[in-house]
Amino acid sequence: MAVYTRIRTQELEKFVESYDIGSLLSCKGIAEGVENSNYLLSTTGGRFILTLYEKRVNPDDLPFFLGLMQHLAASGVPCPVPLHDREGLALRQLAGRPAAMVSFLDGMSVHRPRNAHCAGLGRAMAHLHVAGGDFTPARPNSLSVTGWRKLYQKTAPHLENIANGLEAEIGEELAFLEQNWPSDLPGGIIHADLFPDNVFFIGETLSGVIDFYFACFDILAYDIAICLNAWCFEAGNAFNITKARAILRGYQNERALNDAEIDALPLLARGAALRFFLTRAYDRVNTPEDALVRPKNPQEYLDKLRFHRSVKSAAGYGIDF
Amino acid sequence: MAVYTRIRTQELEKFVESYDIGSLLSCKGIAEGVENSNYLLSTTGGRFILTLYEKRVNPDDLPFFLGLMQHLAASGVPCPVPLHDREGLALRQLAGRPAAMVSFLDGMSVHRPRNAHCAGLGRAMAHLHVAGGDFTPARPNSLSVTGWRKLYQKTAPHLENIANGLEAEIGEELAFLEQNWPSDLPGGIIHADLFPDNVFFIGETLSGVIDFYFACFDILAYDIAICLNAWCFEAGNAFNITKARAILRGYQNERALNDAEIDALPLLARGAALRFFLTRAYDRVNTPEDALVRPKNPQEYLDKLRFHRSVKSAAGYGIDF
Repeated sequence: MAVYTRIRTQELEKFVESYDIGSLLSCKGIAEGVENSNYLLSTTGGRFILTLYEKRVNPDDLPFFLGLMQHLAASGVPCPVPLHDREGLALRQLAGRPAAMVSFLDGMSVHRPRNAHCAGLGRAMAHLHVAGGDFTPARPNSLSVTGWRKLYQKTAPHLENIANGLEAEIGEELAFLEQNWPSDLPGGIIHADLFPDNVFFIGETLSGVIDFYFACFDILAYDIAICLNAWCFEAGNAFNITKARAILRGYQNERALNDAEIDALPLLARGAALRFFLTRAYDRVNTPEDALVRPKNPQEYLDKLRFHRSVKSAAGYGIDF
Repeated sequence: MAVYTRIRTQELEKFVESYDIGSLLSCKGIAEGVENSNYLLSTTGGRFILTLYEKRVNPDDLPFFLGLMQHLAASGVPCPVPLHDREGLALRQLAGRPAAMVSFLDGMSVHRPRNAHCAGLGRAMAHLHVAGGDFTPARPNSLSVTGWRKLYQKTAPHLENIANGLEAEIGEELAFLEQNWPSDLPGGIIHADLFPDNVFFIGETLSGVIDFYFACFDILAYDIAICLNAWCFEAGNAFNITKARAILRGYQNERALNDAEIDALPLLARGAALRFFLTRAYDRVNTPEDALVRPKNPQEYLDKLRFHRSVKSAAGYGIDF
């Protein structure tokens, strides 16, 4: 839930008038996203999402994110389309914050994805990867392998509070991944945060992908690895190979993986699990007790990391040749 | 901001199917209301507000509130209309909570009401009072004069922390109001919480009155007294007599006040100020430090109470005969 900044109605009316979307009819702060304040606006011209970017987003990155959404939407990826005001600007200021308006997407995120949802996710992710191929602006992934050691150093002193021997276990995992991380896999624009919260469905049909604020250039198959972690574990952290197969089949319907990508999946999945383990452990240590947003439990990603270490080949994710 | 309960998408789809409103397209938790969880739904049939009633609402009162909204809407008061499911029920259960769906109203609350907003408020309030005249179910006002002593007793030990001598000052005020509270003024259904947050406008036109969860039977003019407190003080708590006049004129366009009601306004306004002072002081003492909703400052209503004590007659509120 996230509405950190309140907007005066008169200020908002004036803001809306600078777009060609008719006059303002309603505005509701909505519980969507974690990092920013989001509002659902309706005007005589339709429905829109207004986002005020709060402290955790680097304003210098916003043109990249907005340009990417524009590019992907133009290529048919079902993602929010940034609106341009009468002067052609997508990035504005409102209530003292960087602000942008995007189109509204129908659909809802699913709490417990079924196989059909996973297949749709796979297809949309591949579509996004292909469509991002000719998007030229650059944004490296600060949360990929080269960023993990810094996170590890900041959290290592606290890891023993989570479990005995964890500082050593994570240190060894990190060293292994640093040494073995692939450098020859196809790269491109990845979403990098394709959790079920960020994907909308109407029934079983995927209707939208949102929240591009981690998107960056990285190994394409690393996006799949993030999804294997985020979509395929059941309650109690049992891995559901049927869902993994659905994601991979859906993906390969749109973009075929090469042998190197397939072989690398278990390693990439370990990396993705380590990345979310480290950021969750870091947030847990660094979130004040009275924060509005409670940090998520890192233990879940430790279990997932250990599972992926036990996977010998991509067959463990149900991939069929 | 208030989304206390999360709903599973499949459970929600099933819930929506029990109404004749088409199929579910989207659902956003919205930051509206303080006591309950609210969601803005869109379906192929339109937009609706879904409310899950949380702990602070007595479920036994819900048929009264829903019946009242139904009654008022049928009389043309711009308020949410409860939807009935295919079995004719307005009050349902969802995610373990009492739940109801109502029509969506366009419009926004105004942070700094102008005179035209106040006039619209006055007219709508009188409309509500007239339309409520033939609503027969009963609900006494537990937060009127007979309820204040209990609140005072619970907060009195803490009042000295707000200001020196405050326990005595509030005690004397309470005794005075108990002795002089009128018993012969016209009564009926009042909203009892007509703060700017609960009134929507499109431009300067009133488009909706929401949040009937304090509505009850009480002195009609007491509703006006609440609005004089909630709408007519500027920053720094200066009383804006022009806004008060606008409310009273707007009101009397729809329903004429009798002499006794007019004479009683200063006393009723003191009572309304005391009521919100006491509930805010009580909430401040009884809200845990880590609560999602921060209690409002009671000092504001102490200043208002002292102002109304200085008002000698309704002329002090700009009323013209």
